[in-house]
Amino acid sequence: MVESTSAATSHRATEILASARTMCDPVLREAVSSLPEPLCLMGGYHLGWWDAEGTATPQPGGKALRPALTVCAAVACGATPRAARAAAAAVELVHNFTLLHDDVMDADQIRRGRPAVWAVWGIPDAMLLGDALHALAGRILVTGLPGRTATAAVARLESAVIEMCHGQHKDCRFRSGGHVDVEEYARMAMGKTGALMGCACALGALCAQADLATVSAMDTFGRELGMAFQFVDDLIGIWGDPQVTGKPTSDLARHTMSLPVVSALGSGTAAAAELATMYDRDPAAMDIARATALVESAGGRQNTQQLADNRVRAAIAALADPAAAADLMVLAGLVSRRNH
Amino acid sequence: MVESTSAATSHRATEILASARTMCDPVLREAVSSLPEPLCLMGGYHLGWWDAEGTATPQPGGKALRPALTVCAAVACGATPRAARAAAAAVELVHNFTLLHDDVMDADQIRRGRPAVWAVWGIPDAMLLGDALHALAGRILVTGLPGRTATAAVARLESAVIEMCHGQHKDCRFRSGGHVDVEEYARMAMGKTGALMGCACALGALCAQADLATVSAMDTFGRELGMAFQFVDDLIGIWGDPQVTGKPTSDLARHTMSLPVVSALGSGTAAAAELATMYDRDPAAMDIARATALVESAGGRQNTQQLADNRVRAAIAALADPAAAADLMVLAGLVSRRNH
Repeated sequence: MVESTSAATSHRATEILASARTMCDPVLREAVSSLPEPLCLMGGYHLGWWDAEGTATPQPGGKALRPALTVCAAVACGATPRAARAAAAAVELVHNFTLLHDDVMDADQIRRGRPAVWAVWGIPDAMLLGDALHALAGRILVTGLPGRTATAAVARLESAVIEMCHGQHKDCRFRSGGHVDVEEYARMAMGKTGALMGCACALGALCAQADLATVSAMDTFGRELGMAFQFVDDLIGIWGDPQVTGKPTSDLARHTMSLPVVSALGSGTAAAAELATMYDRDPAAMDIARATALVESAGGRQNTQQLADNRVRAAIAALADPAAAADLMVLAGLVSRRNH
Repeated sequence: MVESTSAATSHRATEILASARTMCDPVLREAVSSLPEPLCLMGGYHLGWWDAEGTATPQPGGKALRPALTVCAAVACGATPRAARAAAAAVELVHNFTLLHDDVMDADQIRRGRPAVWAVWGIPDAMLLGDALHALAGRILVTGLPGRTATAAVARLESAVIEMCHGQHKDCRFRSGGHVDVEEYARMAMGKTGALMGCACALGALCAQADLATVSAMDTFGRELGMAFQFVDDLIGIWGDPQVTGKPTSDLARHTMSLPVVSALGSGTAAAAELATMYDRDPAAMDIARATALVESAGGRQNTQQLADNRVRAAIAALADPAAAADLMVLAGLVSRRNH
């Protein structure tokens, strides 16, 4: 019985994501098509619409979780999905702009199973495409939403961008070494991942002309869910199946300070001490299997799952009327159970 | 008589720039102060407010030409300078966001006589600060301008950003070699420099609630002036006094394809052929004095000044009522005569 409920929920989640993508896609395609070449070519490549030569070979794009949050938040507040279309597209563009820039900063060669834009066209073009998608996001809001909704949405979206910049700054600092504790890590994740998911939900509520309390509650829901998303992402980064995730190497191979590692290192166990020693050495000499076992035996895996579950609960608690937000509940369930 | 008129005009230009800076500065400071650290520290450093430790040691910031264009365009259309304050600040923030990113892409170590932000804090932080200033620009427009003006201003500003991205892409391509002609160069300059100056003037007109024809005329004025600005910039890049410009080396030392060079190379003269040979060799082996003389004897200097003058005339011709735009005329004069 539980099994079949879970399967039904999972099926519903897939439907919600597909429907948000279908809703959003024409707006995204129209926006990206308006870019002068080669920005349009690079944008469509990044979004999975074609290969680097522009030949339509549909690739796995993003999960469309953020657009789905915007659409479902709007519906939960009484609007039609269509009313949230421009806002959903703008949020997705900001997400993709930050991915483009993050991949440059983190020297990540692979994005969604393919070479990252900077690895194909070089760093300057990846920076410029990111800047252009950021600009498109703002322009979509002011051309696609009614006046007051548009200005409120731009203010929230740009504030989220600033929080994301701060979160990414901290993440870069964590990578370059030094002590990080779980609380600091959570603050970083709130900026890097929580802020935009909060904004995605808040923009949905704004599109439904919801009152400020409702918009704020949606923001909190999205932020908490975003934290859970990041924590689960960190679990996938170590224990995920590369065939499913499209990410060929474990986060541990690059000495990433993700939550399982931060949590393990702070556990005061013998495993933590051994892991710390491994993290002080050359990443090339890393025994990934051993490090993975150490993170797990130091409690890093269990603790991270626990913290993710707590955040999902906090997200749901923020909803004024969970019964009216069935699809948001489905997405919350998806975040805590996803494997890619 | 001509001398004294010119001196009076130059004095007036200095007053206009200082007044725009005074008008804009509190908005910029409030916006940058809202950034979380270290983005605020880096932002104030970049804008010349303090040194890299945050000690207030006023440095030469930008010329404030773009904010001055916004304020003067607003006044020419019947508004108060104050009505254009938020728009002027937003334009200045976009200008500075692109400088931060351009310096990374071009590996320019020096900005306004000091180490560029990326040279002090690294490339990731310079990228993030640029992204954050871009976000602040959009937020200032929607929080500082009345509804319909705000949405129209965001649409124009973000469109200008996209044009700038495209212009910078072309500029990067020119740097990496290959043939460039004067027309291609002019199209690049329209994106890289013309678009934002056009936007600066258009936003001033929008703040004065001007009609669309007037907004468009102001956009054209600013674009033409921006082209002239870029062409004069190219002259300064070769013949400018490093003591005045704060740029220690000639553009020729890095084989920059600026307009005097492009124009000289296309002249079909013996000097062009010799210059082309020099540009094919290692930049480190460059005889700058010889290359400078070749650009000049191939007509690159004279032709560039001529093209700049033409653009200034086109700018002035775009003004519906030049008599009502005295300060814009002063700024136009400044652009064609500046030495830094």
